Amino acid sequence: MKTSDDIVRDAEAWWTTEIIDIAPGRIAMRGYPIEELIGQVSFPQMIWLMVRGDLPTDDEARLLEAALVAAVDHGPHAPSIAISRMAVTCGVELNNAMASAVNVLAGIHGGAGQQCMELYADAAARIGQGASFEAAVEGALDAWIAANGKVVAGFGHRFHPIDPRSGRLLGLVEAARARGVVSGLYSRIGQEVEAILERRKGKRIPMNIDGATAVIYSELGFAPALGRGLFILSRSVGILAHAWEQSQQGGRIKGPMPKNIPYTYAGPARRAVPGKKQA
Amino acid sequence: MKTSDDIVRDAEAWWTTEIIDIAPGRIAMRGYPIEELIGQVSFPQMIWLMVRGDLPTDDEARLLEAALVAAVDHGPHAPSIAISRMAVTCGVELNNAMASAVNVLAGIHGGAGQQCMELYADAAARIGQGASFEAAVEGALDAWIAANGKVVAGFGHRFHPIDPRSGRLLGLVEAARARGVVSGLYSRIGQEVEAILERRKGKRIPMNIDGATAVIYSELGFAPALGRGLFILSRSVGILAHAWEQSQQGGRIKGPMPKNIPYTYAGPARRAVPGKKQA
Amino acid sequence: MKTSDDIVRDAEAWWTTEIIDIAPGRIAMRGYPIEELIGQVSFPQMIWLMVRGDLPTDDEARLLEAALVAAVDHGPHAPSIAISRMAVTCGVELNNAMASAVNVLAGIHGGAGQQCMELYADAAARIGQGASFEAAVEGALDAWIAANGKVVAGFGHRFHPIDPRSGRLLGLVEAARARGVVSGLYSRIGQEVEAILERRKGKRIPMNIDGATAVIYSELGFAPALGRGLFILSRSVGILAHAWEQSQQGGRIKGPMPKNIPYTYAGPARRAVPGKKQA
Amino acid sequence: MKTSDDIVRDAEAWWTTEIIDIAPGRIAMRGYPIEELIGQVSFPQMIWLMVRGDLPTDDEARLLEAALVAAVDHGPHAPSIAISRMAVTCGVELNNAMASAVNVLAGIHGGAGQQCMELYADAAARIGQGASFEAAVEGALDAWIAANGKVVAGFGHRFHPIDPRSGRLLGLVEAARARGVVSGLYSRIGQEVEAILERRKGKRIPMNIDGATAVIYSELGFAPALGRGLFILSRSVGILAHAWEQSQQGGRIKGPMPKNIPYTYAGPARRAVPGKKQA
Repeated sequence: MKTSDDIVRDAEAWWTTEIIDIAPGRIAMRGYPIEELIGQVSFPQMIWLMVRGDLPTDDEARLLEAALVAAVDHGPHAPSIAISRMAVTCGVELNNAMASAVNVLAGIHGGAGQQCMELYADAAARIGQGASFEAAVEGALDAWIAANGKVVAGFGHRFHPIDPRSGRLLGLVEAARARGVVSGLYSRIGQEVEAILERRKGKRIPMNIDGATAVIYSELGFAPALGRGLFILSRSVGILAHAWEQSQQGGRIKGPMPKNIPYTYAGPARRAVPGKKQA
Repeated sequence: MKTSDDIVRDAEAWWTTEIIDIAPGRIAMRGYPIEELIGQVSFPQMIWLMVRGDLPTDDEARLLEAALVAAVDHGPHAPSIAISRMAVTCGVELNNAMASAVNVLAGIHGGAGQQCMELYADAAARIGQGASFEAAVEGALDAWIAANGKVVAGFGHRFHPIDPRSGRLLGLVEAARARGVVSGLYSRIGQEVEAILERRKGKRIPMNIDGATAVIYSELGFAPALGRGLFILSRSVGILAHAWEQSQQGGRIKGPMPKNIPYTYAGPARRAVPGKKQA
Repeated sequence: MKTSDDIVRDAEAWWTTEIIDIAPGRIAMRGYPIEELIGQVSFPQMIWLMVRGDLPTDDEARLLEAALVAAVDHGPHAPSIAISRMAVTCGVELNNAMASAVNVLAGIHGGAGQQCMELYADAAARIGQGASFEAAVEGALDAWIAANGKVVAGFGHRFHPIDPRSGRLLGLVEAARARGVVSGLYSRIGQEVEAILERRKGKRIPMNIDGATAVIYSELGFAPALGRGLFILSRSVGILAHAWEQSQQGGRIKGPMPKNIPYTYAGPARRAVPGKKQA
Repeated sequence: MKTSDDIVRDAEAWWTTEIIDIAPGRIAMRGYPIEELIGQVSFPQMIWLMVRGDLPTDDEARLLEAALVAAVDHGPHAPSIAISRMAVTCGVELNNAMASAVNVLAGIHGGAGQQCMELYADAAARIGQGASFEAAVEGALDAWIAANGKVVAGFGHRFHPIDPRSGRLLGLVEAARARGVVSGLYSRIGQEVEAILERRKGKRIPMNIDGATAVIYSELGFAPALGRGLFILSRSVGILAHAWEQSQQGGRIKGPMPKNIPYTYAGPARRAVPGKKQA
């Protein structure tokens, strides 16, 4: 039989965190007083500290920052952005519009980076277990395709023949590698995946933004699930910008298309409710 | 009667944005090629560019960055954080947990900064219309209280006698003012509100994190509604960090308290469904 | 200084409800054992019991049921439905798709019924205070327009010249009035609003689904805010049906329009990032 | 090269549905004019029509109705309900509170019924392929446990030794079977699962609400994924009721526990930001 003291102790332990310590007049994140962090660490360093538990070097933070800058938006025809804009015209506030939009950054729309990180991690693990570089990447790629299908997350784009963001991001990784900030292993893995795909398909399936940010997040040691989390922080910026722009443009109950384009009804023809008298 | 050409033109105009231009192989935000932005602008500069349309100076961006760093988290007993953590234990993914949490950063939980910016803006408008500084702030404060109630958004904290974040943020504003980055008007308005409240109540109701970030966002020229938007970008970091930590801790269908503390039922006593036979 | 006993008592009282009583092996809603309710009350009766605290008569429940049936869907071009369908193609599950959609049933999209109920309630209050029927409705309408603008919630439809649902719902209200189930006051108020609007505009602005369900919910004594809640329960059915249909149709990252219709970019022309070397 | 006529045709086909047909002044669901459905079909019949495409018999609809009535609520300590109530105190409206809550009715919290339906369906498939009843259920159970772990969805409850809803629901299934409404196969499968579990564990792990509603939805021919959808429609009622009750109780920024119970910080001790001067 638990005493009230026991119950209170259990209740205090119900919510346990290593992230933030709060006492009256004192707040510390991961042990660092907030008033020391403010003005001294960059926003990307703070993101890293919050999800990882320690502070990155300035070089590491700059590489993370490049990935965060790269993925903020892909225009009003992306479902997440369209949702954010339509939501505003229904009368919700910015937080609600952002929530409806962030909610769909799921496996298919926002999870490609995460899936790509899993592919890279498998290749790295095979190398760690003694496989040759080429065999490791090819084996990881085959295993990934067997489990997930032939559209390889992080490679190819239905719109961009070459993604202008990927080359720039890989260039930053290479510069960081040259300065010893990262090992460059995941960049090599990513480029090997691209080479294998080109060899197999007979045409280039270039690394896209998800594949390139996956290289950076992997080089920096983030877990794959956090790859999606970081993408969400980045894309939230575009979602906010579009929600705000829509609120300034106005509009009420904006649908996906103008009203003079009807949708197609493909169901049964008009019929009477069975067993009921018609009106 | 509209032709198909007309209809296509209407459809193309249905979604119109000044934020992002995308063509095959080319992406530009607010006119700036994405590959030039990546690695050259900071994440706070990118946030500013996306919601404002132009790039801030490095000094302006650093002040924005301090505000973004300051508000990332307030612990697992904040509803948004508790929601994020409970959501994870129900089986959702990080994007869904973040969405349920971001959704509640509404008027009361996340909108204090926005409301405080409206108070400051009213004071500034009264100064612009010729009122003395003291009369403008007092008039704006009275009008705000008449419209919103006596709990003044941005001042006082149920937990912190002095908010450790506010002084540090105001110190950064003062340094920026000394270098000519901002005017310092909103910082003076905020401190005058604090002084009036202390005079009226006979005790200090110190500026809290919302009041201090409202000073910064106002100094930097953001619209009040964007104050909430920026807060959401900041708090999303803490929401992600806690969702991720909870996913590592495990737990299934975590309620708000341990099961040995029952909730209180205060409704009618057991009764039979009227006019029905009891089972 | 609180003892552990005090703290446990506070914690037990933190969550207090009159809705549901749960003990091991026993569950009662509003005092009624769940096993008696199951199979004996209809789903609309259960909805009423949960939000109101008592059971309606069969006649009252059938009127509520008609309103719930009427509002389930308005097609894939409604933002809520489009959001639900797009969400599914991003990889979320049904609960997430429904959440993103339900979230936008806000003031403009889903709140028209609530606003209309407020208009009706004001008219009824004026009658209760002794105004003549005509003066009360006209006064309430003028006050509503002054506060909310000239588009009167619940009247007129951008698509339907006559809403096929309204007449049928009002017919059911009239039949219920004839049997003494409801007073018919709100139906008369709604029809008077319609008559005033026709007189003022010189053309008919017929009562739409929101105006007609507002009549029913008002006749049945629901608070205006619950009008929106009931609409959400109803529209959730359509949201689910469309999410499910989309999941069967397939599709990945479905945007609002086909890709061969571009959106319009209306921002600044391409420009170099200022003060930075061009790539 | 597509002409404008082609593009318009593509756009019209972009959103295609068999659910609802709308023309000015005319609305039909699955071919049935809405004005005929209103007042003639029950809300559960409408739900069935919308997600299945045809109308159920009255007997089938009553069985569905019993399942919808049974699952509306499990009290404020259920995460979905706690989230709904906390959300309201942050200043959101009912639709937003419901969205944050519905969003977490995911695999673990709301998906047990779906998972249980998959188990039942596998058993039924094995019977269809010629296995004996006992071997089919045992084989399906073993396969389910191998894939999903030893906690079998739909059986056992951390709170109720016997779930008062299950027996009542199974009784209604038996009555429906006796009248030829359903086959009773899934009820027998569910009870066989219960018997196997009791034999294996040496104690009763009784069928819970998820297992019992899974029996009903399977008997009625719903796809497993729709089991979750139907549960969401049901639980939305409780979520609404609690959100509304909380809005009447008031409260601002309600956390999961009273403030006099602190959470536990388990992270690093206070430390200075490395390489930075202390303030």
